[in-house]
Amino acid sequence: MPTIMRSMNVISRCSNIYKTDKLRLDDIGGCHHAFIFTICRNPGMSQDMIAKEICLNKSTVTRTLGYLEERGYITREHDEKDKRSLLVYPTDKMLAILPSVRAIAAEWNEALADGIPEDELEIFRSVLVTMQKRAMELAVSDTDNEQSNKGAR
Amino acid sequence: MPTIMRSMNVISRCSNIYKTDKLRLDDIGGCHHAFIFTICRNPGMSQDMIAKEICLNKSTVTRTLGYLEERGYITREHDEKDKRSLLVYPTDKMLAILPSVRAIAAEWNEALADGIPEDELEIFRSVLVTMQKRAMELAVSDTDNEQSNKGAR
Repeated sequence: MPTIMRSMNVISRCSNIYKTDKLRLDDIGGCHHAFIFTICRNPGMSQDMIAKEICLNKSTVTRTLGYLEERGYITREHDEKDKRSLLVYPTDKMLAILPSVRAIAAEWNEALADGIPEDELEIFRSVLVTMQKRAMELAVSDTDNEQSNKGAR
Repeated sequence: MPTIMRSMNVISRCSNIYKTDKLRLDDIGGCHHAFIFTICRNPGMSQDMIAKEICLNKSTVTRTLGYLEERGYITREHDEKDKRSLLVYPTDKMLAILPSVRAIAAEWNEALADGIPEDELEIFRSVLVTMQKRAMELAVSDTDNEQSNKGAR
């Protein structure tokens, strides 16, 4: 049996492939969906908070936000209260794709759980939430580590 | 309650942060661990098969293998039987870090499941394997889609 982590990583990567394909946009991949949800739900959130929310290191978040800004999906403004901090806002272009992104995510979640008995799903969800909490604790001391997630991907 | 996919993605990203931090190498991140396992387990596997095995699109795999080759972790050779195909081999440098990569993965898997009752874990694993199979079916028609996973990340 594959390890828990290997299975989760495979599901996560398949989800990216599926979502990229379904959205049919040249410049938005499955890997951007978490950014779209976070930014649309929290207009004006700082870059650092987005990194914490999505659980990515700051340099990856800065790079991806630069990519989204160049393509007109977000704007960034310096925080009046803290000039070092950049606040992120969705543009109309991002808000326009949100319903599709949401529908694709719902479709994927539904397909993933389809046919699995509700009592098993309930246990699954509860274990998953425990694991998520633990994962965030284990990685939390390192979220400011600019070395994380480095490399070519 | 967060959706199943959101939780899995968060766990996956936290795992990357944790693994990058624990390995303490400037040029290897958590995102490379799946490559290291696959390449060391299957020396001489083709790039295309690696893409299928890890569930990433070919362009991401080509880019990451280029990164690993530049840093001396792999070598690539043209397949004698099919000149268009590139076969990938781990170098001594990659084999040397494999025990650490393996130990960190085991440590993470153990920490993630620690304290969760065995009967719940059993159901969890079984549901996860069903979902993994389904995810691979849903994404399989798109694994050759070079548009997948595009973007800044």
